[in-house]
Amino acid sequence: MAAENDKNLIEILENLNAIDIAKYMNYVSTPQAGAIATFSGTTRDTFEGKTVTELRYEAYVPMAIRCIKFVCSSARASWNLHSIAVVHRLGTVPVGETSVFIAVSSVHRADALEACRFMIDEIKATVPIWKKEVYSNGEVWKENTEFLERRSELSDNKVGCCGKKVETKERSNFRVNDEGSKN
Amino acid sequence: MAAENDKNLIEILENLNAIDIAKYMNYVSTPQAGAIATFSGTTRDTFEGKTVTELRYEAYVPMAIRCIKFVCSSARASWNLHSIAVVHRLGTVPVGETSVFIAVSSVHRADALEACRFMIDEIKATVPIWKKEVYSNGEVWKENTEFLERRSELSDNKVGCCGKKVETKERSNFRVNDEGSKN
Repeated sequence: MAAENDKNLIEILENLNAIDIAKYMNYVSTPQAGAIATFSGTTRDTFEGKTVTELRYEAYVPMAIRCIKFVCSSARASWNLHSIAVVHRLGTVPVGETSVFIAVSSVHRADALEACRFMIDEIKATVPIWKKEVYSNGEVWKENTEFLERRSELSDNKVGCCGKKVETKERSNFRVNDEGSKN
Repeated sequence: MAAENDKNLIEILENLNAIDIAKYMNYVSTPQAGAIATFSGTTRDTFEGKTVTELRYEAYVPMAIRCIKFVCSSARASWNLHSIAVVHRLGTVPVGETSVFIAVSSVHRADALEACRFMIDEIKATVPIWKKEVYSNGEVWKENTEFLERRSELSDNKVGCCGKKVETKERSNFRVNDEGSKN
């Protein structure tokens, strides 16, 4: 769990506005850090040859935040980090706009760079945020290949990303697509 | 060498203004990319227990740009990238401000993340930009440990980062410190 003095900012935005990158960069900036690494996941205009017009994201917000907190704690356990900001939009994200943004600061650059990479991989694999791809001729709910793989690995003991027992049946109303989906 | 249609932006700034992060993020943003990875190297307030008040950078600009172009080409040879932006300030960079910023976009996130990591490591190791650390009680010109190591590896054939013969004697007026310096 997050230590009392860890500087983490986690936000799930439902207001349909663009993510204010500067806000999160400023949050992690500090005179003590020599490095900031960031990752932006953006809506791209095609997926496997199909024209994408927008993505839509849904989540059970308290669970998503709990899982992102766990990812932050895992990153801090492996790297020496100063500040972390993670923001994820829900709702419609048009082509070209950012749906998820991560910023990590550290004294030395290897920590921020490696933790940033770890965090987006872990968020994709463990945080239950559902994505609908809207094409010019239809739409489909998607789960990341990574998420399905990780859930399969965990299925024996039915323990979720944040160490809590999870009810998988609550996701049964979403169509799960076999195709992988990667930013 | 850079292909005709590679979208690379390389800038060496000598105007003492803060780097406009949004400008370079916008440059690499595109509907075709699903991922943007960035790295900011910032001036931190201490180095090995000493209080740093500012950093000062100097470079022979045409050589620095040529070497950064070579790093861009090397990254494109290893990863599938859409756009690359690299900007480095010269002159004084106060504590807390960014001296070097890299932004890389790609269709899939692994390419942008891995290329961004490669590029900052290569820029530190191969681009001749000199750093003076200004402490509260003195100042010293520094070279990165990485730069010294790489130069040593290359010294047998006297070939520089960009495949051109380089005159090492032009650097003899800078004091080279044995200590490593890392963002």
